[in-house]
Amino acid sequence: MAMLPFERSEYLERLGKTKQRMAAAGIDVLLVSNEHNMNYLSGYDGYSSYVPQFLMVAGDVDEPLWVGREMDVGCALNSVFIDHAGIVGYPERYIGDPDLHPMGFMADLLRERGWANRRLGVELDTEPFSPYAYSQLQRHLPNAQFVDAGPLVNWVRGVKSPQELIYMRQAGVISDLAMQTAIDSIAVRVRQCDAAAAVTAALIRGTDEFGGDVPSKPTMATGPRSSGPHLTWTEERYKPGEATNIELGGCRHRYHCGLSRTVVVGQPDAKLTELAPIVTEGMGVALDAARPGATCEEVEAAFRRFTMERGALKPSRIGYAIGNGWTEGTASLKPGDKTVLEPNMTFHMMLGFWYTDWGYVCSEVFRVADSGAPETFSSLPRQLFVNA
Amino acid sequence: MAMLPFERSEYLERLGKTKQRMAAAGIDVLLVSNEHNMNYLSGYDGYSSYVPQFLMVAGDVDEPLWVGREMDVGCALNSVFIDHAGIVGYPERYIGDPDLHPMGFMADLLRERGWANRRLGVELDTEPFSPYAYSQLQRHLPNAQFVDAGPLVNWVRGVKSPQELIYMRQAGVISDLAMQTAIDSIAVRVRQCDAAAAVTAALIRGTDEFGGDVPSKPTMATGPRSSGPHLTWTEERYKPGEATNIELGGCRHRYHCGLSRTVVVGQPDAKLTELAPIVTEGMGVALDAARPGATCEEVEAAFRRFTMERGALKPSRIGYAIGNGWTEGTASLKPGDKTVLEPNMTFHMMLGFWYTDWGYVCSEVFRVADSGAPETFSSLPRQLFVNA
Repeated sequence: MAMLPFERSEYLERLGKTKQRMAAAGIDVLLVSNEHNMNYLSGYDGYSSYVPQFLMVAGDVDEPLWVGREMDVGCALNSVFIDHAGIVGYPERYIGDPDLHPMGFMADLLRERGWANRRLGVELDTEPFSPYAYSQLQRHLPNAQFVDAGPLVNWVRGVKSPQELIYMRQAGVISDLAMQTAIDSIAVRVRQCDAAAAVTAALIRGTDEFGGDVPSKPTMATGPRSSGPHLTWTEERYKPGEATNIELGGCRHRYHCGLSRTVVVGQPDAKLTELAPIVTEGMGVALDAARPGATCEEVEAAFRRFTMERGALKPSRIGYAIGNGWTEGTASLKPGDKTVLEPNMTFHMMLGFWYTDWGYVCSEVFRVADSGAPETFSSLPRQLFVNA
Repeated sequence: MAMLPFERSEYLERLGKTKQRMAAAGIDVLLVSNEHNMNYLSGYDGYSSYVPQFLMVAGDVDEPLWVGREMDVGCALNSVFIDHAGIVGYPERYIGDPDLHPMGFMADLLRERGWANRRLGVELDTEPFSPYAYSQLQRHLPNAQFVDAGPLVNWVRGVKSPQELIYMRQAGVISDLAMQTAIDSIAVRVRQCDAAAAVTAALIRGTDEFGGDVPSKPTMATGPRSSGPHLTWTEERYKPGEATNIELGGCRHRYHCGLSRTVVVGQPDAKLTELAPIVTEGMGVALDAARPGATCEEVEAAFRRFTMERGALKPSRIGYAIGNGWTEGTASLKPGDKTVLEPNMTFHMMLGFWYTDWGYVCSEVFRVADSGAPETFSSLPRQLFVNA
């Protein structure tokens, strides 16, 4: 039997909220393809989203159906909360055959259940549902009406439960350990890959009390490469004066806690030592603005006002909702985002500055408090780290 | 400047082959969205495919255009072989705004280049191009003709160059080291996450000669969870008699070399000790069949014949083309796949057996030789490993 990270009642509550939104959007059956949404609503823990799979949530049926590759039925049996009768595998012949698409199987199953001419919600702007898969589903279900559900489930995920917050705080403890490992490992003549190995091991090892789950790869770009926010380590050795921008995140039961810091070996460039304290103070200002009732754009405006007066311009958003699977794809701390902060929403405040040949990062996850300033999930100093 | 893992001439050769296929498919401009295809054709090394980005390959222009998020221009500057005039970033306001889609920017750019009413190739069944992104692109380009390019670039990737093979062999050396680490780490009372940390560190550390790049997470499911091919470690401790199915892969410049073995702590179940030698011998039979000129289905048939006679049934394919980004999404070693094996194609022969509450895995990457039996990339014994 599956060992579930949440009580059955919590999954049912999530489904209840999802069904309310489905009703409001006129969706009879929601075909959830986003792997994080699938995990959130069912517990499904297989890393198998490179093949088509759906969690089918019908508004008038208690439990969802998990439908995936036959091979992955074992993944479902060992991880979902739903009754095993609700686990359906499609045969292996559907894999790697250009003339046969799993959506044909999905369509047959929907027909069997009497859902073939209902209003079907699909997640049209989220991996891994492809245009081809969608066209196949449409072709096989000529009488269905399709409704773009967009990030419907993602929005349900926004406000965290007490148990979700426990996991995120634990992930935060792991993030601090891993960042400390980075600070301790980065030194002149050390290979970047050796530091990355130590950091990743720290993320997976966790603490003696709780282990780490599958983390996102740490981003650790050094020297000129630190101008790219999504580059990572090489096999080169750290050189004096080089900065490394680190973005990493501990993970517990698929809940991530992002954390970023910049580490310099030797003498840091003046550009960094000038920018860093502005960002440190700016983060304090922005966090102080992140109170329940404020909007996302107000938080960003507070940061922008403060940093621009001091000559630091950050053109990109300063944060986003985080939780299951890292970025939730909903609220952003950016101009124009009028999402109102509610207690127990969690954001990754990511203050990344990337210029032509250098960069600086400092970030932290926070939880919107019931009142006042938010809870933050890291206890590391918010500073530029300089290693001798 | 970017440090390129391949000569400029090799990228141009890849583009040349791609353009030949484009011409045959009636495609004027190919919009490459698959991140592995983007890396293959340009060197782009940012892990940024969670936002829309394209490599635009025009049949009548030498170098492709890289178009992505403004923030990621730094990733491109530090990794692509193309002239910097060919690197275009779209403004940050396109991110996280439901009313503004990066495809609007892409359409404007295509218009500027005079490509808005040409035949545009799109990769319709590959992550991360979404149905919504596709519909937006169509809406913004009413006069373009869209052609599903399918896995056009993926097929170009099939036959490996000498330099690609060097990286894959190096990845194979790393895979062996990491698997040995798994064998050495898995013991009664050890936490699964601690073994996974050691294995992942070994994958990233590599050897003294060459470091490991970003690996895929190792799959390490234990006990009943080993019935699921895509589950991985937990924080539980290994118990006597439990089997762990390990699938991992070293990585060099995005070229992966998969490797799977099963490790048991204590006394293995008779089911395992009966199946393992059949799979070992079956792999030898299948590898021997993997000669140039044979078809994929013939290789699978040789394995199936041998193992079924001995009572072992594997319903899923026994392998697939592997290289940049792991699975290439083209040829499969399965019934009906008539792809002819050519010298320097590389496959992951993945002999995974998953039953209701147990499983067994043994795999290896091979290169189709110029003649005769293939080269294999692991030197580990093909056996069930039993730890005291």
